[in-house]
Amino acid sequence: MPNVSERGTLMPASPIRRLAPLANEAKARGIKVYHLNIGQPDVPTPPEGLEALKHIDRTVLEYSPSAGLLSLRKKLKEYYHRFNIDVDVEDIIVTSGGSEAVLFAMMACLDPGDEIIVPEPAYANYMAFAISAGAKIVTVPSSIDQGFALPPVEEFEKLITPRTKGILICNPNNPTGYLYTMKEMLQIRDLVKKYDLFLFSDEVYREFCYTGAPYISAFHLPGIEDHVVLADSVSKRYNECGIRIGALITKHKKLKENVMKFCQARLSPPLIGQIVAEASIDASPEYMLEVYNEYVERRKFLIDELNKIPGVYSPIPMGAFYTVARLPVDDADEFCKWCLTSFDLEGETIFMAPASGFYCTPGMGKDEVRISYVLRKEDLARCMTILRAALEAYPGRTLK
Amino acid sequence: MPNVSERGTLMPASPIRRLAPLANEAKARGIKVYHLNIGQPDVPTPPEGLEALKHIDRTVLEYSPSAGLLSLRKKLKEYYHRFNIDVDVEDIIVTSGGSEAVLFAMMACLDPGDEIIVPEPAYANYMAFAISAGAKIVTVPSSIDQGFALPPVEEFEKLITPRTKGILICNPNNPTGYLYTMKEMLQIRDLVKKYDLFLFSDEVYREFCYTGAPYISAFHLPGIEDHVVLADSVSKRYNECGIRIGALITKHKKLKENVMKFCQARLSPPLIGQIVAEASIDASPEYMLEVYNEYVERRKFLIDELNKIPGVYSPIPMGAFYTVARLPVDDADEFCKWCLTSFDLEGETIFMAPASGFYCTPGMGKDEVRISYVLRKEDLARCMTILRAALEAYPGRTLK
Repeated sequence: MPNVSERGTLMPASPIRRLAPLANEAKARGIKVYHLNIGQPDVPTPPEGLEALKHIDRTVLEYSPSAGLLSLRKKLKEYYHRFNIDVDVEDIIVTSGGSEAVLFAMMACLDPGDEIIVPEPAYANYMAFAISAGAKIVTVPSSIDQGFALPPVEEFEKLITPRTKGILICNPNNPTGYLYTMKEMLQIRDLVKKYDLFLFSDEVYREFCYTGAPYISAFHLPGIEDHVVLADSVSKRYNECGIRIGALITKHKKLKENVMKFCQARLSPPLIGQIVAEASIDASPEYMLEVYNEYVERRKFLIDELNKIPGVYSPIPMGAFYTVARLPVDDADEFCKWCLTSFDLEGETIFMAPASGFYCTPGMGKDEVRISYVLRKEDLARCMTILRAALEAYPGRTLK
Repeated sequence: MPNVSERGTLMPASPIRRLAPLANEAKARGIKVYHLNIGQPDVPTPPEGLEALKHIDRTVLEYSPSAGLLSLRKKLKEYYHRFNIDVDVEDIIVTSGGSEAVLFAMMACLDPGDEIIVPEPAYANYMAFAISAGAKIVTVPSSIDQGFALPPVEEFEKLITPRTKGILICNPNNPTGYLYTMKEMLQIRDLVKKYDLFLFSDEVYREFCYTGAPYISAFHLPGIEDHVVLADSVSKRYNECGIRIGALITKHKKLKENVMKFCQARLSPPLIGQIVAEASIDASPEYMLEVYNEYVERRKFLIDELNKIPGVYSPIPMGAFYTVARLPVDDADEFCKWCLTSFDLEGETIFMAPASGFYCTPGMGKDEVRISYVLRKEDLARCMTILRAALEAYPGRTLK
């Protein structure tokens, strides 16, 4: 039997994935499992998107252009304009989800051995895409005690080598909910300019900024317009993760050409998803506000309740719909596993994502978990009761 | 401005892509352009698929499992069983089109520097996926004079090095329409076994075999069950290229695990496409037969007409919906370009794919084109009239 690739064996199997079979086993035992581990909101897709889906009257579901439907790209241009991101239709390349945008950005910018610097904790799949591209992720640790603020710019600078090709940020941040300040963004801008780097910016949570602090896009930073590679997705903002529509946006002419070659090789992004996405951009302000308010309320409730539990600490996330919380446990991987295998409160338990999976540095985040607030408030309330009881019962509890 | 990746610059820009702007310019001049260059049939998607699309009553278009919807995988298992391909549901991983199946197969099997042997001419994007994976495609030329039969097995054996990890075939073949015989398949089987290679087999055209000769899947070959990596797609057989649903099928346990890591990194194949694909597998025998008969008729008509044109030769393709034909021209790239820029017959012209783009060996296929018979017979008839006239008028004509 031939051997598989080493690349494949290097690909991380995220701790969430490793725990998923345990959640299924718990369910098979009749336990109700609350999913605090995922980025799949329970919020409905906008009616505009669902209606468009019902009214597709094509008889051939044909390829779309490799760069995406022109009508969708025009609509996205208008959409970005609302956020003071002024890009041309030609700068917008439609992808199969934000995932493909990140993968193609790496493939088109990085060669094997090239390095990018990423603040950690970070979205675990960046690592997977980097391995796919043969590139190396170098991390700068941020800390829960500083509320996951951008590490000092000197920490980035220390890591820059002749192979450094870019900096990758996610803003608002998954998993921490941190929102970068203008001061931080300008520091990144200066570094990018000084060392002639790409700035990969994943901004799929831009609609979810809760504190009144402004959302600052990489495209708002003057002087590095040709350095920015923005990854976007309609998944989170319109609750349509399954349609797999994202976008890669860049003004770098040669990069656009490069990215298009990868797009042409895979022929076309999903046609039907593009139709739904295009209609969803017309989601009413009422819908968007309702979803936003829902998250505001869930966030306040979750963070308040978390911080009431003895030994638990969560900073207040400023955006997205996640928080990374510190728990009074010896090992959050073990604790999350234990919640699924050895604990229930009246037949119910919780599935959280151990934060270790979002760090590259071994040992970091050992007492942290990522909690998504994608469930209804009543469910979140129940989850907090379960978490409190679990922490009281857990043998590896560190709070005496 | 930072530099893009060398990988990206190595990615081939196919000759079709290079000619596409010329086709658009011709249209802008008011010329009607017949597309003989593409794999997008004009045949309708099955009503079962279109109905399923209209009746999606979900309110959240959520992620599907990374391996695809279980119901679709079960249905695919039944579908493959009809072709005597006996695989388990766990062996079937749903992908974003056949393209992603080929990319993930290469990513999960090959490391940078690894080699795979491919008979040429071959589907041009294999090269692109190999470059993405850092792997090297080594080609064995097949020849129009032998009807594009499999080159002698010794030709493969000569190319095997310690880095050779697999053989890739497309059967029925794009671009040639060739259907591998049992004898040829068994020769490939023996090689695969002897050198412990993967056999990558792209079988997306299995429904389109016209000569009564059997379709032989790589999974029909005894003794190499764990070596086979099958790439499949619903695009061609149900005329739904735009839904982006394919599958990677393997019984190699470690490979399945490896492939799943790439699947998990990109989260989910398109949800709506999966729903349409699942319903399409129930397409009626009448629908399938009607489509089949349509291609049989188009094929006969096209090949007869091609071979009537002085100096033109096309073997009879046994499957798929393409043929590679030899034309009496100095340079088919130039001729195809000339048809779009400098020729029209009563305001109409044709867009063919120069075959050079399907060869890796420089200079091969210089007088060949790939013609897709994805247009109605009336249109094909007009195309043949245009081709005949174009060949008579072309300054680089070699037939005196």
